[in-house]
Amino acid sequence: MSTVERFVSLWSQLQPIGRDPATGGYLRYTWSRPYFALRDWFQDQARERSLDVETDANGNLWAWWGDPHAGEAVVTGSHLDSVPYGGAYDGPLGIVSALLAVDVLRWRGVTPERPIGIVAFAEEEGARFGVACLGSRLLTGELTGERARALVDSDGVPLARAAAEAGLDPSRLGPDKARLALIGAFVELHIEQGRLLSNRAGGEALPLGVGSGTWPHGRWRLEFTGEANHAGTTLMPDRHDPMVTCAYTVLAANKQARLAGANATVGRVAVAPNATNAVPERVTAWLDARAADQSTLDDLVETVVRHATRRAARDGTTVSATTESISPEVRFDEKLRDRLVTALGGDVPVIGTGAGHDAAVLAGAAVATAMLFVRNPSGVSHSPAEQATDADCAAGVEGLARVLADLACR
Amino acid sequence: MSTVERFVSLWSQLQPIGRDPATGGYLRYTWSRPYFALRDWFQDQARERSLDVETDANGNLWAWWGDPHAGEAVVTGSHLDSVPYGGAYDGPLGIVSALLAVDVLRWRGVTPERPIGIVAFAEEEGARFGVACLGSRLLTGELTGERARALVDSDGVPLARAAAEAGLDPSRLGPDKARLALIGAFVELHIEQGRLLSNRAGGEALPLGVGSGTWPHGRWRLEFTGEANHAGTTLMPDRHDPMVTCAYTVLAANKQARLAGANATVGRVAVAPNATNAVPERVTAWLDARAADQSTLDDLVETVVRHATRRAARDGTTVSATTESISPEVRFDEKLRDRLVTALGGDVPVIGTGAGHDAAVLAGAAVATAMLFVRNPSGVSHSPAEQATDADCAAGVEGLARVLADLACR
Repeated sequence: MSTVERFVSLWSQLQPIGRDPATGGYLRYTWSRPYFALRDWFQDQARERSLDVETDANGNLWAWWGDPHAGEAVVTGSHLDSVPYGGAYDGPLGIVSALLAVDVLRWRGVTPERPIGIVAFAEEEGARFGVACLGSRLLTGELTGERARALVDSDGVPLARAAAEAGLDPSRLGPDKARLALIGAFVELHIEQGRLLSNRAGGEALPLGVGSGTWPHGRWRLEFTGEANHAGTTLMPDRHDPMVTCAYTVLAANKQARLAGANATVGRVAVAPNATNAVPERVTAWLDARAADQSTLDDLVETVVRHATRRAARDGTTVSATTESISPEVRFDEKLRDRLVTALGGDVPVIGTGAGHDAAVLAGAAVATAMLFVRNPSGVSHSPAEQATDADCAAGVEGLARVLADLACR
Repeated sequence: MSTVERFVSLWSQLQPIGRDPATGGYLRYTWSRPYFALRDWFQDQARERSLDVETDANGNLWAWWGDPHAGEAVVTGSHLDSVPYGGAYDGPLGIVSALLAVDVLRWRGVTPERPIGIVAFAEEEGARFGVACLGSRLLTGELTGERARALVDSDGVPLARAAAEAGLDPSRLGPDKARLALIGAFVELHIEQGRLLSNRAGGEALPLGVGSGTWPHGRWRLEFTGEANHAGTTLMPDRHDPMVTCAYTVLAANKQARLAGANATVGRVAVAPNATNAVPERVTAWLDARAADQSTLDDLVETVVRHATRRAARDGTTVSATTESISPEVRFDEKLRDRLVTALGGDVPVIGTGAGHDAAVLAGAAVATAMLFVRNPSGVSHSPAEQATDADCAAGVEGLARVLADLACR
């Protein structure tokens, strides 16, 4: 069997799990029934390969080839959970590729000098409890067990209860420095979430890229307040309509992000009272903004808020901006990055990403970290339209095997 | 006691009923506990005045001075229900003023030659079952009993069950031509929902206006469809973001309505998936548009949809517009209108309104109908900020008494 055939065979096992038949999107919430099916599948696959399986105190799944305490482990992996109605590749591609890369190394008779680990981090998307990279943030201590236990999902289920039902001891959630110290290098393979690799001239070359780091990004809550009124009887000059100010701000964010070569999105809006025949009293919009560097991001957000404030004065409304989260820029380990590029033959683009990843969390905790991206012709992510060809995925497996061999055998 | 004192005394009885202490807004849903308190209050007040009380098959409450079958009844009234978190005056002012106008006529020794009726129409706001002017539309047959029985409130309670619990026979809901034929003229007193009376030069004159009719108006559902994508990784030129198209359309509707001297409102929006870190796949916005005449309204909506469509092409999105409801222009009876103006002394402005009213429903059923508006200095409606001075309300009572005397005694 070729690597493509092996990929298709293993990949197809995951396709039905948590798939919504109507949309083709995946619903793989952490510690839901589909998630447990994925966890069981992962542990079965690891055991079939005689890897040692364990679940850490934070619900992250591990499979080890060799004694993890032997020193300077080379760890790869990603996550199994999805955003609601997400694509198939975001997360699971890194897990499937890791299992197949171990197969490739074994068939080639490679004997690692260092332990190789495969990890599936818990709740990377934050789709159930609202905190992205939950498992890795708990592992590093960036998020405390106390704060995690206080999280509640949208059905009102506390994280502590859900964790207990998943077989964890909620009191043990929290930093695990001993485990972190086992990791000599971490490499996460992930589907690309844009089209840099697809747009690349000579795109028929290796369909892989190496990550340089993650863009700084954040979320701001913009509250537009006006005056509720009757939509039929309030003349336009008498209105204080916060929907109008919000609409202007959405367009300003879009324009300013384009000018700055950055990203700005308003993807979530809440209106009160949200009645067809009422001028709203309040519109809340969440601004997601990301840029290649911190000063561009700061300028972008400041400019958008300034435009919003100026328009609010004209509309007789008010606007207030609250920072909900900020993630600083993360630059991956440069030596490790160069080693990946060399292991992959040298002709590999190095690309940044606007998304957060467990790899960035680990990098923030001083773990030598790198990322490997597989080309995504649609450029679409967090949607069923996300895609990669089987051939490109197989190239990802081969590339990851080369990287692991390089890191674990020298 | 002066009329102002009498007004304050009766009005204060209603103030606590259904009032939300946090906002000061009223929650007086049809056939809710506060509504039953208002109904009991109305019936008690009518009996104190020796008026004959009845509830018709559609839940409208009636109180009669004289035999309603004596011919050419002069009916006044409004409604007791409110929009959620609405103001105190919209509806109840017309009921309280009617009761006090009867008192004024009696103290003055007026003996009507025709029966005088006071009506409180059911579910005028449509806040519980979604259809405005439900009671009057059932009475005239504009809405069939069958359609009404199929309505369901937001808690899933069918109208048929709620009506039965309120003591009605749901199978009898529907047109009541015999009752309609009793009405020789209908005059609804209502708080003004804009500031035409307040802005009037010489505003210290009579704080009342006479209605000319209601503007044609409608609701259109605008569906903006794009492509769901990752907010962090999708570069701006690769997006198909329906939020941007929607925002542009909100601004276009605002601007075009101003240019046309009409009203356009987007007060309700739904976003899918409505996630902070996702470019939305779909944004639905409801456009409420009203204008002084049908061709201005048609032009306005057509222009807004054209702007939306053009912008969608630029954004790589699509837009579809669906008409959800259309209410044609209603012109009140001109003879009756002129008679009101004369009865009020001649110096009374005649004003149109962008709102719907039971009076407009009755006018649509060929009942001679008129409206009397009381000045609202805030211009605000459907909000606790709605207001009228006690002196203006008393002037409304006096004005209504003059109108009733004129109509019932000649």
